[in-house]
Amino acid sequence: MQAYGVKGIPLINKGDDPAKAIINGLDESKITLEDGDIVVVTEKIVAKAEGRLISLREVNPSENAVEIAEKTGKDPRLVELILKESRKVLRYGKNFLIVETHHGFVCANAGIDQSNVPQGYAKLLPRSPDSSAASIRRSLEKAMGKRLGVVIADSFGRPFRRGSVGVAIGASGVITLWDRRGEKDIYGKELQVTRVAIADCIASTATLLLGDADEEIPVVVIKGLNFLGDGEAKDLLRTREEDIFR
Amino acid sequence: MQAYGVKGIPLINKGDDPAKAIINGLDESKITLEDGDIVVVTEKIVAKAEGRLISLREVNPSENAVEIAEKTGKDPRLVELILKESRKVLRYGKNFLIVETHHGFVCANAGIDQSNVPQGYAKLLPRSPDSSAASIRRSLEKAMGKRLGVVIADSFGRPFRRGSVGVAIGASGVITLWDRRGEKDIYGKELQVTRVAIADCIASTATLLLGDADEEIPVVVIKGLNFLGDGEAKDLLRTREEDIFR
Repeated sequence: MQAYGVKGIPLINKGDDPAKAIINGLDESKITLEDGDIVVVTEKIVAKAEGRLISLREVNPSENAVEIAEKTGKDPRLVELILKESRKVLRYGKNFLIVETHHGFVCANAGIDQSNVPQGYAKLLPRSPDSSAASIRRSLEKAMGKRLGVVIADSFGRPFRRGSVGVAIGASGVITLWDRRGEKDIYGKELQVTRVAIADCIASTATLLLGDADEEIPVVVIKGLNFLGDGEAKDLLRTREEDIFR
Repeated sequence: MQAYGVKGIPLINKGDDPAKAIINGLDESKITLEDGDIVVVTEKIVAKAEGRLISLREVNPSENAVEIAEKTGKDPRLVELILKESRKVLRYGKNFLIVETHHGFVCANAGIDQSNVPQGYAKLLPRSPDSSAASIRRSLEKAMGKRLGVVIADSFGRPFRRGSVGVAIGASGVITLWDRRGEKDIYGKELQVTRVAIADCIASTATLLLGDADEEIPVVVIKGLNFLGDGEAKDLLRTREEDIFR
């Protein structure tokens, strides 16, 4: 397996075509896509292209937002955005607010980001990341004439363990959840660990390259894997019934 | 970044030297280690070398184990092993038992594995994976004359999301938790996502190669990253006080 950071992708603005920007970057980085390659795209450029950069000045916090802002120490306008992006608040307290977004992601602050956005702005997650992944994949496949996978990645913290890891919030053309139920181990017994979150492992692989401090690398190309398929990132979401920690 | 699965590592038995087996595998796979390479080792071969393969026939379940076995539908002898490996039971129910191990890992069944072990046996996690990683690293560095990192990896499920991902349960010579607090974003503001679980991302990268169904690939070599350091896997453990889901 090889993974390459794609450089030379310009800052994305509302209305820009992320696929076009990725193709430019691939050209500049002299990376040729082949059948089976997986293109990992940070959610940031998708969200910016969708116009999900919101000026906090235009946000009027509700009473509920003001109350949670006091308890968390967060900006009430940011809390208002978080609540609007969420279907359920799971936990909050000093400096944290964990929610379930309308997409079904469980994460801090509904995935709203204030890093690498202009002062006074906040960036919401893409509206429908699986659809965005499908659209980027179609454009790249058409331009390149190759069968590709696309993963839209973000970084989430998690219970029990420190630090953030990559997660797939959107995917198209790849296996997201590899179901190995029924397979046998080397002794002929049924495998126990039966489902592997392939798309999250792919996102975490990209994190190792995206995380470069000096330079913005919003796209990573992964070659040499055999994980094309028809999964979506929403396959990775536990329902509440399946979840003993919610 | 490049990642290579190491083939040709024999089945490990109690008392074997994992480092020696890895060196054999590297030879057979014609992989040369260079300064900065990270060697990811599945916990399985470390545990087997430590003699952590236990015959269930030799286990006498306690009353508590029998009771939890009834409620979970698990073998009472397996439950007895799980309880012995744990300092706290967090949740249990039909078909699941989530504990905090003596190491501090929160996972199902105390990480005890019945796949890829002989019928009637169960495999416990290595006793002290950070020390095992350090010992493997010293042996490999001495044999190769290079500065290396070692990560001992397992697969854990997690709340909120389906499927298992790679996690670092032991590490030596690498950055495990990359602390970016104080760094600035492209607009000169302080970064928000401040700690990245690098060693978990490394373990998840290896998962993409370890997961091969046909062949046992217990070791992966990752080249081209710049993450040597002095972290340990225990740096990745949240304390209970830091954890709002425990």
